[in-house]
Amino acid sequence: MRIFLNPLREKWNEIIQRPQINNASLKKTVAEILYDVKQNGDGAIKKYSLQFDGVELSELKVGKEEIQEAVLTIDDELKSAIGLAKNNIEKFHLSQKEEISIVETSIGVSCWRKSVAIEKVGLYIPGGTAPLFSTLLMLGIPALIAGCKEIIVCTPADKNGKVNPVILYVAHLLELKNIYKIGGVQAIAAMAYGTETVSPVYKIFGPGNQYVTVAKQIISGEGIAIDMPAGPSEVAVYADASCNPSFVASDLLSQAEHGGDSHVLLVAASLEIVDNIKAEIDLQLLSLSRKVIIEKVLANSRLILIKNIDDAFELLNEYAPEHLIIASDNAELLSQQVINAGSVFLENYTPESAGDYASGTNHTLPTNGYAKAYSGISLDSFVKKITFQRLSKEGLKNIGNTVMSMAQAEGLDAHKNAISIRLKNL
Amino acid sequence: MRIFLNPLREKWNEIIQRPQINNASLKKTVAEILYDVKQNGDGAIKKYSLQFDGVELSELKVGKEEIQEAVLTIDDELKSAIGLAKNNIEKFHLSQKEEISIVETSIGVSCWRKSVAIEKVGLYIPGGTAPLFSTLLMLGIPALIAGCKEIIVCTPADKNGKVNPVILYVAHLLELKNIYKIGGVQAIAAMAYGTETVSPVYKIFGPGNQYVTVAKQIISGEGIAIDMPAGPSEVAVYADASCNPSFVASDLLSQAEHGGDSHVLLVAASLEIVDNIKAEIDLQLLSLSRKVIIEKVLANSRLILIKNIDDAFELLNEYAPEHLIIASDNAELLSQQVINAGSVFLENYTPESAGDYASGTNHTLPTNGYAKAYSGISLDSFVKKITFQRLSKEGLKNIGNTVMSMAQAEGLDAHKNAISIRLKNL
Repeated sequence: MRIFLNPLREKWNEIIQRPQINNASLKKTVAEILYDVKQNGDGAIKKYSLQFDGVELSELKVGKEEIQEAVLTIDDELKSAIGLAKNNIEKFHLSQKEEISIVETSIGVSCWRKSVAIEKVGLYIPGGTAPLFSTLLMLGIPALIAGCKEIIVCTPADKNGKVNPVILYVAHLLELKNIYKIGGVQAIAAMAYGTETVSPVYKIFGPGNQYVTVAKQIISGEGIAIDMPAGPSEVAVYADASCNPSFVASDLLSQAEHGGDSHVLLVAASLEIVDNIKAEIDLQLLSLSRKVIIEKVLANSRLILIKNIDDAFELLNEYAPEHLIIASDNAELLSQQVINAGSVFLENYTPESAGDYASGTNHTLPTNGYAKAYSGISLDSFVKKITFQRLSKEGLKNIGNTVMSMAQAEGLDAHKNAISIRLKNL
Repeated sequence: MRIFLNPLREKWNEIIQRPQINNASLKKTVAEILYDVKQNGDGAIKKYSLQFDGVELSELKVGKEEIQEAVLTIDDELKSAIGLAKNNIEKFHLSQKEEISIVETSIGVSCWRKSVAIEKVGLYIPGGTAPLFSTLLMLGIPALIAGCKEIIVCTPADKNGKVNPVILYVAHLLELKNIYKIGGVQAIAAMAYGTETVSPVYKIFGPGNQYVTVAKQIISGEGIAIDMPAGPSEVAVYADASCNPSFVASDLLSQAEHGGDSHVLLVAASLEIVDNIKAEIDLQLLSLSRKVIIEKVLANSRLILIKNIDDAFELLNEYAPEHLIIASDNAELLSQQVINAGSVFLENYTPESAGDYASGTNHTLPTNGYAKAYSGISLDSFVKKITFQRLSKEGLKNIGNTVMSMAQAEGLDAHKNAISIRLKNL
């Protein structure tokens, strides 16, 4: 852990710098796989599944039987946990539905927006070291609430050709039928371009490794929408004298276990808090299973002492963390200073892991400072908001001259003609 | 105009195909300019302004005097037109503000979203053949309503080093102070990376030519947000027996005057309607000033006869037009079939040009079929929606076991620890 005491403002940029990831070298490889799948469809996918995942697949689509088998293996405790999480995620995302509200901007000029589901969406769920069934909840639930007609899920099979059973259980619970055993770049290609088995979609969601990230970046440049640019997961914690140092330590550690490239940052209001949290980290680390990963992340973590609250939040806003925990009894007031963050966790009994799984907020959030311009996933991510307008004859009379003046000033006389020809008819 | 009568469904894809634009050949040139500005700042910008726009600039920032001079040149009629348009655009975008609504997903678990303005945004306003001051209204107004702190405007100067006075008048009206005489790829580079004069921003908005489009695409791959991918402007009209053929013709013509690459498509319910509209196009074209551009676009336009309403809207949804006019007394009912469109214009007295300037809806809309997954610009485009959550002790008791079960099933025991260490403390 690197400790900074009252760092000068000139040093901030360096301190909050994330580890630079250079994906450029992957681009050629990724582009080649994308192209191969675009040209050769299922055949190319099966080839890469064998090459990268060591599995020979006869069928890409997960069959009913495999789902039924998987459902049987899930114990009741986990089922009920998933049920509660689903319920909370549904409640919060349902609250994001927008009613149509008609605005009369001038008399006779009515304007409104209507949210219409993106018809075809693809959800990528990584396998690998942690099977992220929670991500399927976080993407599948808003897609269903939005009313997306075709929801396709791609997730890699293990060496035995099986998909993680909890992922299949969640798919079953959400009544998602189109689950494919496809991972990595091949999955992004299949959903972007379509194959004999997989229908192409209009927008692709979901996390992934660097190859998946680059693949999403490339297809996004080709006009297929993606959820957001991705980077390694991260947390920042603000802790003052009212924090509980062992709680804060547990939060920093939980972020650190995500992967070796995770980023962890603490801003504390006193040296005592820094010391106490550091001691707690050392203690709790001993009993954690992903110790090796965590130690790697901690080596690169930053504990920063900033006594002035405004300065502290200025630094945090400049960092723009994916997750921001405000470990303070005064969190609600302090949170008004938050400008850039993906999701914010207030007070001492709101660990990040609550939001990762079950509070109801979405855990697919902007990393790498993208929170300065991007929001996390919400119901909005699965709809287009189409605008509508209707002018009555009176409405056209009221704004017709305005449109004609402006069109003329922009040199667009056919635009003007579209008004004048109607006005003459009134 | 190419006419298709009751085309077979197998032919639809070919009929609705937009002219393919291959920007790949521009990438290298654009990337070099971006890199040069990134390295050499204002000096590089001035070099390219001379090279591409033929203007030698001493100052990049528009001074107060130039703005004051410009304001004096605008006549009262245009001022009042712009005033009315501003008012309507403000009303509609103000209605998009979201109140904070706290959702208690489980007892003691509170979640909410808060819209927070993107702090720094850049607006690109093209000059060239049509000085799009209306676009400055469409981008500047929601940026101001959102509360963006730094709003930067880049727009090219003419050969005399002057910015279009109406653009400056609108900037003055909106009290935008940071206007720079920078066009093309240089403008995108300046706003993305910053220079001695221009501060870098987090998100870049605005239309542009193919070079600007490619520049935005490249910087978007580098993590700077952009409004949306761009393509040439387009309109589709659905016309039935209750349409007024001369109105429809005027709408098709107004879209066609935008530029040689614009796209125009008509779906009509009878052959008589097709014939009448075609005759009206030929007639009205005679008196339009941008006749040459329009004729080029019309040569590539499609007039399609489809009698069945469901089929007609299926084709229109597959086309996913930027603008969709439903020229029918029955437009409201028909509009329920719209799944993919940027903005929709209902009935016979709602020309597209009303929405281009003054109805209140935004005219920055998804082209090129992107309406399948993208929305047009709205207040949402200028904010991040940050999620917040707060668990009381009771809240943690209510969902703690759920989080622990799920974390364990995903193999993340530090996540579980963050809960258990708190539960023990209750």
